[in-house]
Amino acid sequence: MCGFAERVPVATALERLLARVAPLAPESVPVTEAADRVAAVEVRARIAVPHFPRAMMDGYAVAAASTTSASETRPRSLSVIGEVRAGHAYDGSLVRPGDAVRITTGAALPPGADAVLMAELTDPGRDGEVQAVAAVPPGKHVAPVGEDVDEGAVVLHAGRRLRPQDAGVVASVGVGAVAVVRRPRVRILITGDELLAPGAMPEGPRVVDSNSLVLHALCRRDGAAAVEIVRLPDDPRAIETAMREPADLTLVTGGSSVGPEDHAPRVLAALGELTVHGVAMRPSGPAGFGFIGPRPVFLLPGNPVSCLCAYAFFAGPALRRLGGRSVAWPERSVRARLTRKVSSPLGRTDYLRVRLTPDGDGWNAHPVMLSGASILSSTTEADGAVIVDEGSEGHAEGDEVLVYRYDEAS
Amino acid sequence: MCGFAERVPVATALERLLARVAPLAPESVPVTEAADRVAAVEVRARIAVPHFPRAMMDGYAVAAASTTSASETRPRSLSVIGEVRAGHAYDGSLVRPGDAVRITTGAALPPGADAVLMAELTDPGRDGEVQAVAAVPPGKHVAPVGEDVDEGAVVLHAGRRLRPQDAGVVASVGVGAVAVVRRPRVRILITGDELLAPGAMPEGPRVVDSNSLVLHALCRRDGAAAVEIVRLPDDPRAIETAMREPADLTLVTGGSSVGPEDHAPRVLAALGELTVHGVAMRPSGPAGFGFIGPRPVFLLPGNPVSCLCAYAFFAGPALRRLGGRSVAWPERSVRARLTRKVSSPLGRTDYLRVRLTPDGDGWNAHPVMLSGASILSSTTEADGAVIVDEGSEGHAEGDEVLVYRYDEAS
Repeated sequence: MCGFAERVPVATALERLLARVAPLAPESVPVTEAADRVAAVEVRARIAVPHFPRAMMDGYAVAAASTTSASETRPRSLSVIGEVRAGHAYDGSLVRPGDAVRITTGAALPPGADAVLMAELTDPGRDGEVQAVAAVPPGKHVAPVGEDVDEGAVVLHAGRRLRPQDAGVVASVGVGAVAVVRRPRVRILITGDELLAPGAMPEGPRVVDSNSLVLHALCRRDGAAAVEIVRLPDDPRAIETAMREPADLTLVTGGSSVGPEDHAPRVLAALGELTVHGVAMRPSGPAGFGFIGPRPVFLLPGNPVSCLCAYAFFAGPALRRLGGRSVAWPERSVRARLTRKVSSPLGRTDYLRVRLTPDGDGWNAHPVMLSGASILSSTTEADGAVIVDEGSEGHAEGDEVLVYRYDEAS
Repeated sequence: MCGFAERVPVATALERLLARVAPLAPESVPVTEAADRVAAVEVRARIAVPHFPRAMMDGYAVAAASTTSASETRPRSLSVIGEVRAGHAYDGSLVRPGDAVRITTGAALPPGADAVLMAELTDPGRDGEVQAVAAVPPGKHVAPVGEDVDEGAVVLHAGRRLRPQDAGVVASVGVGAVAVVRRPRVRILITGDELLAPGAMPEGPRVVDSNSLVLHALCRRDGAAAVEIVRLPDDPRAIETAMREPADLTLVTGGSSVGPEDHAPRVLAALGELTVHGVAMRPSGPAGFGFIGPRPVFLLPGNPVSCLCAYAFFAGPALRRLGGRSVAWPERSVRARLTRKVSSPLGRTDYLRVRLTPDGDGWNAHPVMLSGASILSSTTEADGAVIVDEGSEGHAEGDEVLVYRYDEAS
């Protein structure tokens, strides 16, 4: 029995992976469900916003010239010839010089009017009249047609992950449905005779599977539509049957290495292609991935930190790309100063957990001492991760490093 | 008719609001649904992890002393007395000096063994034997009881928003359910005779309501469990009936000002308390809020940028606090240099939209010119917002400002 024949550098593995992963085909969703989805094509305005000259204040719609030289001391009297409220059609006559139409914010300006005289700039007049006590120029308190969006304008570019306000703009331009990248369906195969389902009390030689919970939450964060979790014994036939089932992306945890009980790599090689097996990284050295048809299948070590780490480096970027999102790590990053030297052999990528403490305007990063691949609590005690890449032999105390924060991911 | 008698400074308004908003009562959820929820009480380990000495490699469980001085040239022969695989109980006899038990990663060490001799450090022996070609010290490749978590240790503090790995750790220590802060139920009342539901084509004097979509997405982002949207005419009785309906937090859009069609403030004052009405800010000056019993009710202007802004300053923090989250803005912030002077009167808080462009290691922030309260596209063209607080008269060109990025919120 021997170890991995070759360990593939992280960058090479990622390149081989992403070369074969593309966004899923688009689907159409109602605009009410478009927020946070990724636009598959650009969206153009079907109508201008506003599509009529719109009053921006409560008051009187007038021809601006009717108010010329009006003031507190020399008010000008206007005939109130009608009223128009937001959402209602004006059914009165043309607004001529000397006329005024009561209007509320959001209503369409009646024909002949070109300005709104704020209610605050009027005094009551005789029956059927109002007094303008100030002059208003044409266009005052009127939003012209297209002030917000012109008809035909691009309101959304392809590839945009819709922010809350994007969904609002799309609806406002009369678009009812948006073509968005389909969200990936994920299957997670948890292998291991020793594993109990989350919620159980560990007993005898059995422990609770935590990887399914961690991966489920990560997949949801990264835009998965559905995440199905299947628990399997260390049985190659059971793993093969489960690995054949359709999905957009499959994760397999446990049995990813080269021992006799490590069935997943052999099963994947038989069903499709084992593209990478063994990566020059720590933790997660025994990770791998391949494809069954176009579908990526990830072999994640069962040790929980390795599992988390292999997801972060490979499965996560692939999942996000399938859903049209950025492959970049979604964790917020901050620069921090290392408080202790860390060593890492040339040619290996290390995933270092650190605690952050504020230091003036910046941060200090303290490497977490308990850093074994099986110590999941090291990732809950830590505030983030530092990547020591393969070209580096580590960092000296005081070096500035980039920390991906566990607490803030988008 | 006149404007607001008084405009309350933003900080004062926020203080009055948050003094009366506390996290909702806890509820118990299965650990499988605990990710991203906020722990209401601390969680302790019911059992150590691992709860037995665990093999960390495939190989042979041995008494370490049995391998003393073993080497390639002077291997030591061990009797293979049994086998134990992960998840299975060992039913063989005590491991004595000179004995070896085949073991797989994750299995419990049999009694008498204190180390794992990696398979890679053995050669085949005669029938029933294996050759150790290296010495291992006691504890080698064995995770001792509690290496990850000690029994009784606090694995989660109250107030923690559970990261993916937190859910994993909680499951691993035998905890099946977690007390978490209940997620708020939100009702959004969209008022305005002029509004069509999203998905419609604007026609005649009617426009499409975009606020419901923006607010819905923001509330979801901020942890709302359910968001109910109700569309209402400009009718005080309809607004009153809808405002009475139970929720943890109510948002009302439109008719928030002081005109004759602005019913919401009067309805709220009659049903409960109008705590703040009119804020010294732009946009969103006509915003307000109050309470019906303990329930906060927010009056958001109908203009979409004002609506977004009033949510960001007041409703969002309250919603997050109800759900046990931080009141701080969830948008990622970056420092950037203003490329143009911006003015803001003393005593007023301004919400400025900016575009960001990279500039060396940093960013430039370009104020978006179209900054009217009704121009929703200004928030989709912008990359983020700058707050010019009431104590500032604005910023000079080149000043460094903090930009809350629209594209990255957690």
